[in-house]
Amino acid sequence: MGMIGYAKARKEIARAFRLPAATVGMLAILAISAESADDLKLPASFRNWYHVNTMVIDKGSPLFEAMGGMHNVYINSTGETALKKGEPYPDKTVLLIDLHEFTISDGSYLEGPRKATAIMLKDKKKYASTGGWGFQAWAGGDPTKPLVTDPTKQCFECHQARKDQDYVYSTYIP
Amino acid sequence: MGMIGYAKARKEIARAFRLPAATVGMLAILAISAESADDLKLPASFRNWYHVNTMVIDKGSPLFEAMGGMHNVYINSTGETALKKGEPYPDKTVLLIDLHEFTISDGSYLEGPRKATAIMLKDKKKYASTGGWGFQAWAGGDPTKPLVTDPTKQCFECHQARKDQDYVYSTYIP
Repeated sequence: MGMIGYAKARKEIARAFRLPAATVGMLAILAISAESADDLKLPASFRNWYHVNTMVIDKGSPLFEAMGGMHNVYINSTGETALKKGEPYPDKTVLLIDLHEFTISDGSYLEGPRKATAIMLKDKKKYASTGGWGFQAWAGGDPTKPLVTDPTKQCFECHQARKDQDYVYSTYIP
Repeated sequence: MGMIGYAKARKEIARAFRLPAATVGMLAILAISAESADDLKLPASFRNWYHVNTMVIDKGSPLFEAMGGMHNVYINSTGETALKKGEPYPDKTVLLIDLHEFTISDGSYLEGPRKATAIMLKDKKKYASTGGWGFQAWAGGDPTKPLVTDPTKQCFECHQARKDQDYVYSTYIP
């Protein structure tokens, strides 16, 4: 992805993940109505899902402001086999990022409290315009605080770069 | 822990986790006989266990040489409730560190291949001299390459500092 596309994507991701109270409040109001009839809900049991991998976005990253933190990635059982085989994901697959703060202590990066939770839900038909994936994120992992109002701009424009992996950045690490 | 104790612990941990081929080979030969009648075995299914948290030990850490990498911590179902309640762990609890290499790309820390796998197995009676925990680690997560020959020096001397948490460093992050 070129730097211009990257900077643009960054701005949009910032709208999805950063958490200044006023902005989040506005987005929440805008999003609740859009989301009410939707199936993009925060899964209750994700902490017991399969842990795919972890990534840390540190201060040195151009993505830090937008989505800095420790990204613990989980997948529901529907998608586990496809993940391991590197195949396209079946409908009802959910990939979830549990984004946490971190502190650095003497060179160790330690996981802190939850900052946000984001999901991708596969439904080839329903979300055909965004690669077959529906996107949503919640401030602080709070189901009453959805953050995504424009999934194309806030999510898919960046995920598009991973079309070869069914639009998923994470890969299986045995 | 004072710096002298820390430096000492670091040397011992280095013996548990670092992987120069010759050393590992020696340790493996020494350890296989000690371990053969033991219950400290590499669990087959740990990648499906509950993900407790993740920690990254970076170059800036005095522990980097000994155990640098991305530490994904898992717990078996026996210990899950105690973890969440912050209570002492029941016998047969296993805590496991799946230690991976990482690469840094533009400020993002990305998980790489497995470097080692380490466990703590609770058996209050059997491992009374080391806080009720048995310790073992395997180079590259290979069950034929155990690394711990002296659990007191290589493991317990450092875990002793967490007596208030039943000798476990990790805590529950909801």
